[in-house]
Amino acid sequence: MLNITLKGGAVKQYEAGITAAEIAKDLGAGLYKAACACKVNGEVCDLRTPLTEDCELGILTFEDPEGKKAFWHTASHILAQAVQHLYPDAKFAIGPAVDNGFYYDIDVPKAFTPEELEKIEAEMKKIVKSGMAIERFELPPEEARKLMEDCRQTYKLELIDEHAGNGEHISFYKQGDFTDLCAGPHLMSVAPVKAIKLTQCTGAYWRGDANNQQLCRVYGTAFPKASQLEEYLAQVEEAKKRDHNKLGRELGFFTTSDVIGQGLPILLPKGARVIQLLQRFVEDEEQRRGWLLTKTPYMAKSDLYKLSGHWDHYKDGMFVLGDEEKDDEVFALRPMTCPFQYQAYLSKKRSYRELPLRYNETSTLFRNEASGEMHGLIRVRQFTISEGHLMCTPTQLEDEFRGCLELAIYMLKTLGLYEDISYRFSKWDPDDREKYIGTEEQWEEAQSAMKRILDDLEIPYVDGVGEAAFYGPKLDIQIKNVHGKEDTLITIQIDQMLAEKFGMEYVDADGQMKNPYIIHRTSIGCYERTLALLIEKYAGAFPLWLAPTQVKLLPIADRHLDYLYDLQKKLQAAGIQRVEIDDRSEKIGYKIREAQLEKVPYMVVVGDKDIENQVVSIRSRKDGDIGQMTAEELIAKLIDEIDRKVIQ
Amino acid sequence: MLNITLKGGAVKQYEAGITAAEIAKDLGAGLYKAACACKVNGEVCDLRTPLTEDCELGILTFEDPEGKKAFWHTASHILAQAVQHLYPDAKFAIGPAVDNGFYYDIDVPKAFTPEELEKIEAEMKKIVKSGMAIERFELPPEEARKLMEDCRQTYKLELIDEHAGNGEHISFYKQGDFTDLCAGPHLMSVAPVKAIKLTQCTGAYWRGDANNQQLCRVYGTAFPKASQLEEYLAQVEEAKKRDHNKLGRELGFFTTSDVIGQGLPILLPKGARVIQLLQRFVEDEEQRRGWLLTKTPYMAKSDLYKLSGHWDHYKDGMFVLGDEEKDDEVFALRPMTCPFQYQAYLSKKRSYRELPLRYNETSTLFRNEASGEMHGLIRVRQFTISEGHLMCTPTQLEDEFRGCLELAIYMLKTLGLYEDISYRFSKWDPDDREKYIGTEEQWEEAQSAMKRILDDLEIPYVDGVGEAAFYGPKLDIQIKNVHGKEDTLITIQIDQMLAEKFGMEYVDADGQMKNPYIIHRTSIGCYERTLALLIEKYAGAFPLWLAPTQVKLLPIADRHLDYLYDLQKKLQAAGIQRVEIDDRSEKIGYKIREAQLEKVPYMVVVGDKDIENQVVSIRSRKDGDIGQMTAEELIAKLIDEIDRKVIQ
Repeated sequence: MLNITLKGGAVKQYEAGITAAEIAKDLGAGLYKAACACKVNGEVCDLRTPLTEDCELGILTFEDPEGKKAFWHTASHILAQAVQHLYPDAKFAIGPAVDNGFYYDIDVPKAFTPEELEKIEAEMKKIVKSGMAIERFELPPEEARKLMEDCRQTYKLELIDEHAGNGEHISFYKQGDFTDLCAGPHLMSVAPVKAIKLTQCTGAYWRGDANNQQLCRVYGTAFPKASQLEEYLAQVEEAKKRDHNKLGRELGFFTTSDVIGQGLPILLPKGARVIQLLQRFVEDEEQRRGWLLTKTPYMAKSDLYKLSGHWDHYKDGMFVLGDEEKDDEVFALRPMTCPFQYQAYLSKKRSYRELPLRYNETSTLFRNEASGEMHGLIRVRQFTISEGHLMCTPTQLEDEFRGCLELAIYMLKTLGLYEDISYRFSKWDPDDREKYIGTEEQWEEAQSAMKRILDDLEIPYVDGVGEAAFYGPKLDIQIKNVHGKEDTLITIQIDQMLAEKFGMEYVDADGQMKNPYIIHRTSIGCYERTLALLIEKYAGAFPLWLAPTQVKLLPIADRHLDYLYDLQKKLQAAGIQRVEIDDRSEKIGYKIREAQLEKVPYMVVVGDKDIENQVVSIRSRKDGDIGQMTAEELIAKLIDEIDRKVIQ
Repeated sequence: MLNITLKGGAVKQYEAGITAAEIAKDLGAGLYKAACACKVNGEVCDLRTPLTEDCELGILTFEDPEGKKAFWHTASHILAQAVQHLYPDAKFAIGPAVDNGFYYDIDVPKAFTPEELEKIEAEMKKIVKSGMAIERFELPPEEARKLMEDCRQTYKLELIDEHAGNGEHISFYKQGDFTDLCAGPHLMSVAPVKAIKLTQCTGAYWRGDANNQQLCRVYGTAFPKASQLEEYLAQVEEAKKRDHNKLGRELGFFTTSDVIGQGLPILLPKGARVIQLLQRFVEDEEQRRGWLLTKTPYMAKSDLYKLSGHWDHYKDGMFVLGDEEKDDEVFALRPMTCPFQYQAYLSKKRSYRELPLRYNETSTLFRNEASGEMHGLIRVRQFTISEGHLMCTPTQLEDEFRGCLELAIYMLKTLGLYEDISYRFSKWDPDDREKYIGTEEQWEEAQSAMKRILDDLEIPYVDGVGEAAFYGPKLDIQIKNVHGKEDTLITIQIDQMLAEKFGMEYVDADGQMKNPYIIHRTSIGCYERTLALLIEKYAGAFPLWLAPTQVKLLPIADRHLDYLYDLQKKLQAAGIQRVEIDDRSEKIGYKIREAQLEKVPYMVVVGDKDIENQVVSIRSRKDGDIGQMTAEELIAKLIDEIDRKVIQ
């Protein structure tokens, strides 16, 4: 008998050899029906796996990320099966689960038309309706080859050759007339994949290499319930509308130019104003928290990057000016600020009394991204970031790390982004030593210091092995864009290696020269990326304190203009600068509609009555008509909303 | 008889053939004694020139720039004569007047020691004391060659060969035993060069070419009166102390690093803070005046620069990334912002209703200066500038130009730099067509538009032929640094060429598509250069609104610290952010001296009595102890000084 520890800690006894699926059934019919995969001692497994030892067991449903993955992976097999029914000569490459669904790369003579996708989708639904069971089996490499040769699945043969080296058996999943080479895990049957939608068909090269055969990549998504699919598709539609790369252009936040190049967006007045306001907010808050501003150059001789390690570990990502073989001096644009702020530290002899020394900078960085990877304001070749480096003693490290994190959280909360983030503890990959500097001991020390701090602060994080900087571990604050794609917004890093490399020292209280710990951090991350996230978050409707135009003044007729010029002056004198008058000879309804489309927070409409009563009529973008008030009342209302940085 | 129109418009009659010197004598013995050269119909001439036609005549003294030049040029001949006396084998190259004095390049076996310079200076004084007359004579080229061969003056022979081509006579100036090939003009005798100082001896190559003979360049200056020389030398000493490249480093405004490279200064917290404050001041003022902020990329594909003409006319000054022969895409860092803001203009269709459209940007630029030309914060490879481009209709041009100029003047006055500037109307050089785009007609049109505007505005300017941008004429606001070296701080340019090149258009009221006029302008110029000028102007003692540290709080003993922490909070809550507490266990006198050396505008000293009476004792950097006041009184005083941007 086995002792199986279930979620919540209860222990139940089962006979050795029982499968996770059977235990799920024992626990309840509902759970069995919903089960997609399981977790045995923390490892994701197939529900069919027989349990042979005492273990911790978790049943994974569609609500768990790993359960979703198994569900979507099964959906991709259903897709392949449907294609096989309709196009018997199709050859299958790979078909994984991805964020928000799945795809399958298929070798067919030509890309599927939307009509063909509809037919495939209908065939998939037929397969699901059949409710056929899914079986798993294993074959020795030679038999596996034979099976795939019989089906003429040449891509699968290539994959078998890759895995067959160690002589281990190869696993397959079979549902009715379709069998696929696959590591799993998969659902127990096709039945739960009730709601299916094929979303698009694009081109993709076998193994991502443009020299190989071009394949047809069919994307889709699937859910246990039709209502979930509907909700998801509505979200996608909404996401498309909010996509900063569309909405940000429409609202005049930014543009791009072929003649300037990819990944080099031009911030138009609206976008530039929001970034100016964010930048001032960040710099002021940092000043209040004891950070000292620097302004260091955007390029340096290769010597600096050789010293820092960037030349060895990051050169491909850098823009280099000149040629080492031809030129006396080779410069490179900076991909990060660290070695530049270190030169500021090195400008004089330092004492422990000066530590912690906190340097911040609104810093522009350059990264030589590949042409295909650029996206709007999010993936660019030049960006500006709220950078900072903090030099401290070992005993100050925890407090200072906490200070950096509190600052980041304060920024995220103020911008209304805090609820959308997650934490990643990015570690080195000991199996990929060449990517990093320093010894194993140094990495262990830095990572355990970081772990201790994160645990003390009760930060809920996931591990990111291989995601560390080349000089130390990171706490990354991750955020998803409107399409669900995750990026790092903010990072706080512990570095005990570069100070020594750069000869950065301080005289300690005991008279000894020591190297400081360095914290690398951003407090709001990259301004362009933050702008993009805010456009998507607010669908372009910025809170009053950040709105590029805060108030639009709309006269009903030309004779009301003077009254509004006067109001504009009053508002601006009170510090509400971004006030525009729409003095065009258009109907008032038209002007209001346009201001609403521009997402201006407040509109002031003025006609004869308002002037007579010395008031103004206010419309809010959010609540429509909110009645009349005096200029003084309006100013007080707006100033209060700005001061509190109200998120709408 | 000739009608000679004198300064002020009076006309006097003289016999034809009379020299300017004789007229000066006739006008008064004082004027004759002070005369250095003259101006005939606007052209600078030798006093010995016989007048043969009616003309306008001005007598130039040491007070006139051209008079000074003749004076110093004569001093350089006296230097050469003295060297000839002491080193008969010396060969002379060239010896011009320069800013603040003169030099002579001399071929001698080794550089002069300070002791030798003293002896030469003594010999010069003997020559001056002799009061010998200076004569001018001309020789046909062959005889000129003969004369210089006899003296073994080989450099002079080279110069004769250059000028002898057209067969014209060659002019010489002779004073006693020394004769020099020279175009003049020169004083009538050596006597007026009363006060002389040789300042240094450096190396220089013949014709500035490192492949040629190295010469010994002796610098000196001279004045009519000893008191003027003394005053000048005192100024030079003061200038050395104020030199931003020395003082700015000492006070911790900036540093440089060999490993980063030349011309790439690192702004330390003090320098970065002043630039942050300046930048906010400029951006806010521009916003108030209707400028719309953009933020455009710092690099672009070569395509953009080919379109703008920078690739043809400015490539050598640019940092290029990549190689046109090897790479698909070649990028270059931008040397100016124009074509980038044009892409913002081009982001949508424009109507005359949108004009004038004023784009400003805090813009970083890159110029590939030669290694030898870098100087502190003034001549650098990367700098940030208050850039702007304004698109307008022809009828708006004058008003908008005036607006740009008013803005620049407002900035200069606020910073206390206005009294130090002069204006230069920079024109094209029709003899050097290749440097410019556009036709002669376009240049005539743009230059006369600019002239009309400058005359309307009564701007007193000097002409700068050949100083125009390659696309149009400029009004340059020139300023001298502490050493008297002139640089352009601010520029306002009229451009009617690039809009057409870039296809920038607007729909006019008549429905026609037209190209706008473009004004290129800066409003405070380059921030690094402005910072350097301010450090020199104020000798590091910044006005309160710009001071990196505004107030220093100095407790007499540790028990007074809490009172000061409380005061710091009050000051910061009132918007006076840059307040530091000196909590070191040092004597109060020492702390005050250090704060004074740091040039902090206000010090607050607190002891038992102050706390008892709930007041603070204030010391001003300028006036010393200014008595006691309450915290509220102090805040009111400081806020008033900040709001009025008082220059100390």
